Amino acid sequence: MNSFGRIFRIHIFGESHGDSVGINIDGCPAGLSLMSEDFLADIERRKGGLQKGTTPRKEDDLPIFKTGLFNNKTTGAPITILFENKNTRSEDYQKQRSVPRPGHADFVAHKKFGGFEDYRGGGHFSGRLTVSLVAAGVIAKKLLASLEDEAIKVTASITEIGGEKDIEKGLQKAIDAKDSVGGIIECRVTGIPAGLGEPFFDSVESLLSHIVFAIPAVRGIEFGTGFAAVKMFGSEHNDAIENMDGKTKTNHAGGVVGGITNGNELVFRIAIKPTSSTPKEQETLNWETGKVENFSVKGRHDLCIALRVPVILEAVTAIVLADLLLLEQRIPRILHA
Amino acid sequence: MNSFGRIFRIHIFGESHGDSVGINIDGCPAGLSLMSEDFLADIERRKGGLQKGTTPRKEDDLPIFKTGLFNNKTTGAPITILFENKNTRSEDYQKQRSVPRPGHADFVAHKKFGGFEDYRGGGHFSGRLTVSLVAAGVIAKKLLASLEDEAIKVTASITEIGGEKDIEKGLQKAIDAKDSVGGIIECRVTGIPAGLGEPFFDSVESLLSHIVFAIPAVRGIEFGTGFAAVKMFGSEHNDAIENMDGKTKTNHAGGVVGGITNGNELVFRIAIKPTSSTPKEQETLNWETGKVENFSVKGRHDLCIALRVPVILEAVTAIVLADLLLLEQRIPRILHA
Amino acid sequence: MNSFGRIFRIHIFGESHGDSVGINIDGCPAGLSLMSEDFLADIERRKGGLQKGTTPRKEDDLPIFKTGLFNNKTTGAPITILFENKNTRSEDYQKQRSVPRPGHADFVAHKKFGGFEDYRGGGHFSGRLTVSLVAAGVIAKKLLASLEDEAIKVTASITEIGGEKDIEKGLQKAIDAKDSVGGIIECRVTGIPAGLGEPFFDSVESLLSHIVFAIPAVRGIEFGTGFAAVKMFGSEHNDAIENMDGKTKTNHAGGVVGGITNGNELVFRIAIKPTSSTPKEQETLNWETGKVENFSVKGRHDLCIALRVPVILEAVTAIVLADLLLLEQRIPRILHA
Amino acid sequence: MNSFGRIFRIHIFGESHGDSVGINIDGCPAGLSLMSEDFLADIERRKGGLQKGTTPRKEDDLPIFKTGLFNNKTTGAPITILFENKNTRSEDYQKQRSVPRPGHADFVAHKKFGGFEDYRGGGHFSGRLTVSLVAAGVIAKKLLASLEDEAIKVTASITEIGGEKDIEKGLQKAIDAKDSVGGIIECRVTGIPAGLGEPFFDSVESLLSHIVFAIPAVRGIEFGTGFAAVKMFGSEHNDAIENMDGKTKTNHAGGVVGGITNGNELVFRIAIKPTSSTPKEQETLNWETGKVENFSVKGRHDLCIALRVPVILEAVTAIVLADLLLLEQRIPRILHA
Repeated sequence: MNSFGRIFRIHIFGESHGDSVGINIDGCPAGLSLMSEDFLADIERRKGGLQKGTTPRKEDDLPIFKTGLFNNKTTGAPITILFENKNTRSEDYQKQRSVPRPGHADFVAHKKFGGFEDYRGGGHFSGRLTVSLVAAGVIAKKLLASLEDEAIKVTASITEIGGEKDIEKGLQKAIDAKDSVGGIIECRVTGIPAGLGEPFFDSVESLLSHIVFAIPAVRGIEFGTGFAAVKMFGSEHNDAIENMDGKTKTNHAGGVVGGITNGNELVFRIAIKPTSSTPKEQETLNWETGKVENFSVKGRHDLCIALRVPVILEAVTAIVLADLLLLEQRIPRILHA
Repeated sequence: MNSFGRIFRIHIFGESHGDSVGINIDGCPAGLSLMSEDFLADIERRKGGLQKGTTPRKEDDLPIFKTGLFNNKTTGAPITILFENKNTRSEDYQKQRSVPRPGHADFVAHKKFGGFEDYRGGGHFSGRLTVSLVAAGVIAKKLLASLEDEAIKVTASITEIGGEKDIEKGLQKAIDAKDSVGGIIECRVTGIPAGLGEPFFDSVESLLSHIVFAIPAVRGIEFGTGFAAVKMFGSEHNDAIENMDGKTKTNHAGGVVGGITNGNELVFRIAIKPTSSTPKEQETLNWETGKVENFSVKGRHDLCIALRVPVILEAVTAIVLADLLLLEQRIPRILHA
Repeated sequence: MNSFGRIFRIHIFGESHGDSVGINIDGCPAGLSLMSEDFLADIERRKGGLQKGTTPRKEDDLPIFKTGLFNNKTTGAPITILFENKNTRSEDYQKQRSVPRPGHADFVAHKKFGGFEDYRGGGHFSGRLTVSLVAAGVIAKKLLASLEDEAIKVTASITEIGGEKDIEKGLQKAIDAKDSVGGIIECRVTGIPAGLGEPFFDSVESLLSHIVFAIPAVRGIEFGTGFAAVKMFGSEHNDAIENMDGKTKTNHAGGVVGGITNGNELVFRIAIKPTSSTPKEQETLNWETGKVENFSVKGRHDLCIALRVPVILEAVTAIVLADLLLLEQRIPRILHA
Repeated sequence: MNSFGRIFRIHIFGESHGDSVGINIDGCPAGLSLMSEDFLADIERRKGGLQKGTTPRKEDDLPIFKTGLFNNKTTGAPITILFENKNTRSEDYQKQRSVPRPGHADFVAHKKFGGFEDYRGGGHFSGRLTVSLVAAGVIAKKLLASLEDEAIKVTASITEIGGEKDIEKGLQKAIDAKDSVGGIIECRVTGIPAGLGEPFFDSVESLLSHIVFAIPAVRGIEFGTGFAAVKMFGSEHNDAIENMDGKTKTNHAGGVVGGITNGNELVFRIAIKPTSSTPKEQETLNWETGKVENFSVKGRHDLCIALRVPVILEAVTAIVLADLLLLEQRIPRILHA
């Protein structure tokens, strides 16, 4: 249940305020060079505290390689990477035990796991676990870059914050209102071959949306023109094929037709809700008293969690594509440098 | 790859102009009463030809039960249901073999399967296969209705066609323009218990979006306030919990928090692109000549495929929920009437 | 649950006395030539009635291709094959409803499926379903034969019946005793490359034994020297590697070391219990009376079911190997003749 | 590929001479009490050095709980357990890099992973990883013991060493011959309910044999009378059902009929080959020279690895049964003490 993928297969684990979070990656080809340095840039991008709008919690977040590497190369055996939780302030959360935070998983976790859940900082539901996705994404990106014909490049960026295309303006809105805001992230993939994905259940959109909704705070996903497509006529929306490689005149489809990549740029967007932990006082239930009471979030949080999502979105996209490329035998099981 | 689900597990197969399409359903509890009559209403809803905007192709679409039933009850063994293809006019398509239809899977199927694909009417990529999803959905809905405490009810309806909330008006727009249009479908589920779904990869949104994108022509999905959430402040978006059952004051989350149902109504919407087969003349490549040429769709088609989608959306939603309820042991393995 | 395989993935369904039995095969490469004629020889080998010791029940057992083929070639879409049940005499079984046949699944099926199971002729538990395995095996064998370097050849044969190496003698023993007997089948695979299988859970032995125990009446499996290995010293049992291809001096390992094929002949044996339906009168419980009573099998049955198993064993072995070869990218996703 | 199970699902990882070995367990019910002390007895049983015939390598082998536990109880989130490798003497193996040890995975690992494998002490193929299976088995056993009606008890024991029923005698044979020997382990499970397992691919025998062959050195498995069944008549082999609970007069079936448990004791046996690392000098290929040369094993090894297997066999058996009991909804998702 905490697993994803068919050949390049990831297993996620850990809690926000436990010993560590981590990931196990099975099915990665042997012979891929892998060092701590490969991870630093993406992990840095995911970290909070670097710009206004993100949380001051800082972890060194150095990947600790436990298994699957030998002489700085993947061996073909499962790769296990841990990230220690060093900078936790659990007492912030213990105080709030009886008050499920609105917008957070506290209430559903309690319902689902009968009170045995690790509630500190969201426990296993925490966004903290996305550092593991970023790590797996780094490996997946290296696989995409290893393709002989043309490297596949995945790039995600914020296109809107708090309803503003000018991102700074959107953030300032949140700061002024002492509230949190959401945003839209767009992901684009170039160099992607035609033929990835399957009809029906393993369509590219199915697989991508499946893993995208594993990212906390995602509320929607759309491919190509997406929701705007419903206002177009068919003759406008259809992308005319121009050459034998499948290059189309327009790209309203966002690079996927019939669930299969068509050789054009893959384009999709996701919606991130405003951070649930907002400085504003809110109402919620107190489990112990059974009464609704005012509630104010303590702890460290992001005004706009969307700022941290692009690198995570790139990661999960690369993970899906690496798996599909292995399935299509476009990435070999052994990488000879 | 043509499979979906963990316990209630479906396998889809068939081609638009082959002998038949069908589905195999594994893991369905024993003892569920099942007769042809159970399927008629939903199959009728999916059929074209009933209203303006849908295709005149008609199949009787009677489900043929091949396995898994005995004395009109499920046995616990895999259920196989076939739908024969009686009313095919494949010659329409054979003529167009060298011209991949814009917006259709013809080109990608050719790339993926090397020319061995059954190209007639979209072959295995055809919307025809959704009749099988509807059939599995009928079974899943019966499981949802069997719950002791409260029946779970799944209802999908069109909220917008061709950019118009007045559906008739949207359709007329297409008829006037001699073009096709898309639409938005909303799905609502009542009676759903809290605690379904898993953190991360098997979140309710992950599973639903996975199977939703198996429906041809879907371009986007959003839960609760969805893309509109990005314009809200956190304090507005958060749903205040009001009682011990998890009932919230508002339902911006659409009934899912942290990937888990929270006991409120489940609400999500999907975007359906305008039908790719539009009466309008279009440009596309001719594979044989290697040149772009004008192209005009023959065959029978829907002006607005979105009209047929609500019952399919209900079906796939019920399929996901039946599986999760089995996993949570809320539906037993044997149903004693 | 009725599925097996990772890429070349089969789904089995049907009941002995229902409409039909069948199989769905997903993940088969596109472009494989496939015709009824390809199946006849193996289906014939599985049939009863051809020699003393096998059941007089005869089905034409012609494969009915429902999906996945086009112009006599696989398309890459799921292949569905049905076998109709024409020659059923269910009344034989209905009479015995209250008496679970010893050695058969009647009792456990009732326990597991709460009385909703199709009990006629063993229902979904029937050996009748192995015709579907044989069909999938024919396809898998064709894939093994398509390898460029060297065709892989799977051959199973009976080595012992009723405790006798002389098979005729073993059968005569059963006829004389008016009882049933079991046997041992050996399977040998030549041309198999080194490197198939995975350490631990997906070892070649794990996968083969998994599917082998899906064959009714199998009671044991051993690889290479198998149970006899426990009487050898390590220095005797070890196979000395003689050349860079991994050719070993002896083959006590039966071609698998560490769960991975080592390039030598794959050799394993299975034990088939004596047919449970024996002409001899036996004791069993009557569910209605709650008392033990004498019982005598009606219906048509084999004196020695082991006689029909070699072709089934070949089939399941080929299925496992085809899957592993796809996973190792030694069989391509598209077969160009 | 390094995963096993459907609901109670394990993922194994690590290398003999790397940082650590470990296991991730997903799908374990919440609320199970779990402490270091629970693991000690079984881990001790697996350890070498306690009796003649086992290796002097000693690890403390204390389980390090990384995730999934909170206040000494399972939380429902994935459990990660590590075992550090403290007592490695890798230089022993590095010297032998060019000489693949006969009977070991050195050669096949090299073929499969292209030379990138961690070859030290067998790397990911090492029997060292079975400590992780034992750990998962401890958890599974606690689940089996938690059943309300009757605790399920799994017991494995050695029945034969080096061809001798008198185990001491068998070991002495090895010591005298300065060679290694194999053995037979029998596993018995009491208190097991009828109805576990599925027809065909997920038969109890299929699942058990699948995971049993993940244990290094296993060469065969047989259920009930197993290979001896082939010498019996059907009327002798059939177990007469005596009462409504399915209790049979004899238990030749070993508690499984039609792939499903029948409520009687589950009985099966496995064959363990003689330890590949024997003190005797042997021949093998030198990869660098391409010539066959004499070879003598350095490092620490067991004269009879079978001595360490009973607790591992219990573990994998308990793992399968816990998974099936969850699937059958006989173990709840939340355990309330």
